[in-house]
Amino acid sequence: MTASQQSPAEDLGATALEHKLASTNGHANGTNGAPKPSLASLDASKLQVTLADPTLRTVPDEVAACTGTETICTDHMITASWSLANGWAAPELKPYGPLTLMPTASVLHYATECFEGLKAYRGFDGKLRLFRPDCNARRMLMSTLRISLPGFEPEELEKLILELMAVDGPKWLPKSRPGSFLYIRPAVIGTQPQLGVQAPKQALLFITASFMPKMDAPAGGMKLHTNPEDMVRAWVGGFGYAKVGANYGPSLLATQEARERGFGQILWLYGPEGYCTEAGASNFFVVWRSKEGQLQLITAPLDDKLILDGVTRRSVVELARERLQGELEVVERKYTIDELLEADKEGRIVEAFAAGTAYFICPVSHIHHRGTDVLVPTGKSGAGQYTSKLKSWISGIMYGNEQHPWGVVIEEKGNN
Amino acid sequence: MTASQQSPAEDLGATALEHKLASTNGHANGTNGAPKPSLASLDASKLQVTLADPTLRTVPDEVAACTGTETICTDHMITASWSLANGWAAPELKPYGPLTLMPTASVLHYATECFEGLKAYRGFDGKLRLFRPDCNARRMLMSTLRISLPGFEPEELEKLILELMAVDGPKWLPKSRPGSFLYIRPAVIGTQPQLGVQAPKQALLFITASFMPKMDAPAGGMKLHTNPEDMVRAWVGGFGYAKVGANYGPSLLATQEARERGFGQILWLYGPEGYCTEAGASNFFVVWRSKEGQLQLITAPLDDKLILDGVTRRSVVELARERLQGELEVVERKYTIDELLEADKEGRIVEAFAAGTAYFICPVSHIHHRGTDVLVPTGKSGAGQYTSKLKSWISGIMYGNEQHPWGVVIEEKGNN
Repeated sequence: MTASQQSPAEDLGATALEHKLASTNGHANGTNGAPKPSLASLDASKLQVTLADPTLRTVPDEVAACTGTETICTDHMITASWSLANGWAAPELKPYGPLTLMPTASVLHYATECFEGLKAYRGFDGKLRLFRPDCNARRMLMSTLRISLPGFEPEELEKLILELMAVDGPKWLPKSRPGSFLYIRPAVIGTQPQLGVQAPKQALLFITASFMPKMDAPAGGMKLHTNPEDMVRAWVGGFGYAKVGANYGPSLLATQEARERGFGQILWLYGPEGYCTEAGASNFFVVWRSKEGQLQLITAPLDDKLILDGVTRRSVVELARERLQGELEVVERKYTIDELLEADKEGRIVEAFAAGTAYFICPVSHIHHRGTDVLVPTGKSGAGQYTSKLKSWISGIMYGNEQHPWGVVIEEKGNN
Repeated sequence: MTASQQSPAEDLGATALEHKLASTNGHANGTNGAPKPSLASLDASKLQVTLADPTLRTVPDEVAACTGTETICTDHMITASWSLANGWAAPELKPYGPLTLMPTASVLHYATECFEGLKAYRGFDGKLRLFRPDCNARRMLMSTLRISLPGFEPEELEKLILELMAVDGPKWLPKSRPGSFLYIRPAVIGTQPQLGVQAPKQALLFITASFMPKMDAPAGGMKLHTNPEDMVRAWVGGFGYAKVGANYGPSLLATQEARERGFGQILWLYGPEGYCTEAGASNFFVVWRSKEGQLQLITAPLDDKLILDGVTRRSVVELARERLQGELEVVERKYTIDELLEADKEGRIVEAFAAGTAYFICPVSHIHHRGTDVLVPTGKSGAGQYTSKLKSWISGIMYGNEQHPWGVVIEEKGNN
């Protein structure tokens, strides 16, 4: 091997992702990570609009909308196709409908797919808001690159999301339903019809908006069951921190078994030490008193890249540090299930909750670990005081009770 | 929690997969693992046939067929849809064409997908054969259950594969091309249009046959680069042994980087010890002399479920034990990259090869590990004597030079 074949960094890929992230820099980049400024970038200003006939579909009752086996989407979706040869084509806003993929499409075989999840909120002040969509857009870029899909400027994705809601918000999340939300799902998939195991040379970005049930206050709280010893969700050197499909499908088997036993989600432990990581597909928080008597809000750290850098997690950490200062210490560190069991024995557990976009901030009432049950206090209202406070603050920003930079107002089109 | 809510085994899911495999038992089973004999099983005898107009597409030149960016498939494909409510619908053999999926389909978000890969061989005796298709069908069942997709009787999948080749074999793999093959790709995907993170209640099985280049004798042999320290392919408690999409997409980033440096595949190491596991998406074998001077064929073991139970791997192990007895010892055990480097320093490495359906048996000529290069002897012919012998024996069975139970002859339809 000659020196010219060798990249400067000897240890291949150790920084592959950082390399790609840096080289993306707002340009459509090839799969080799080098920017190709001649290729088209994702550009929201080029959006081509084909409106659906609004009389074709009616907005269902909120409860009925979430009871079937199919997700009900709004009138429109946004798509943008990408190819290695040409970069990003002009995005399209068009009637919601099926995608056509060849049976050989990369995504159907090799899980070349990633997604984001965020919500649009109809405020009590009548305004329509997103919550920190910049965080989702940046994470989506990181996920696409981790799974060998094309890069893009996060701001462009954010604009496209805003555009979809500007069009569909007035009808599907009307002012007559304050306190309601729609779920927005951007996704990128590898569409190249080629069975070779390789980074796809064609991809599709698509964004849908749909109904999703409120899941933040299940009767009796969320019940967690720790994962079986022979199944782990993610591992150091894996991709647990990225919102890629490959983190979800393989976890369904354990979740299904847990549900058959009356539990809602898996509390995923890591390693022989049994570090607490995530609760289902949400981040996990515990409020406890340390052995020294200090009141703490504890959650797993991001630095070993095992867990998702959740937008709700981040917001909880930031608000707790700001608004509960002096009252409660926020601790991001590795902690084990044994520490949790010990704290329970000693009566030091105060509250626990799962935090994520789907479940929002959901009180945890019960943790089962290999024959031992931890019953977590949830108070008379179904959620402890800190869980309630954090939920109320963040919810207030989402629904416009508090004007805050995290709440991004959507300029809606048409009448409402 | 009452006793009735608790399954007999306290430790949830520890045996979830075995439980599901046992309960499948030839019946369509629900996602709860319990057999539902009232639901329809996958039944090849119910195949509904809609033939394509054979004049619409012509068979391309073998080389040209593999040079584009799209996989060229044969005239037909087989599909079978499944739902939790009804089980398996009658399978269909129909013209090859696109699939239609809702943007909310499970497979596009949660990687609820798995596949198989096998080849159909046009023998030098004019017959068309599959190689151990029963192994692929059984592995596919294991993969579907691991990824929360529906079970089926493996024999029925095998019959469907045979049927597709019986129809398309005569035209697409004609007797005028002895020594050629087509690549068969069965896959199952979750199709339920529902964004909830859950086992899909609808799925689709599809089988295609296509051209794939011969990759078993790259000029100069296959060059391997060990994975970066911060990227691992699979882990104990994960799903490295199952042919699920989630094992492939996340590995593309490291593979891409390796290719840019002139290497063909990643040699995936595991754990701080650096155990050698797989070479790209193939199994990996080394022929060396032990420190005691014993000639050994060594490969990673299956028992910790890190690696795929490859059909080629299995065949190599079985044939070597049978036909190289007394000459070479077959060893399935954990071995580290340091052992490999030490053997190289001491001149004990004899040969190395990758083994899998795509690359068949492909000589490895070069292994790069963090600044150290191991140059593996490949002999004058480009492959060492044991690599050549094993390749020749297995190839002989595939192409009918040797009559052997592993070569399953397809009864072709129509003229040829």
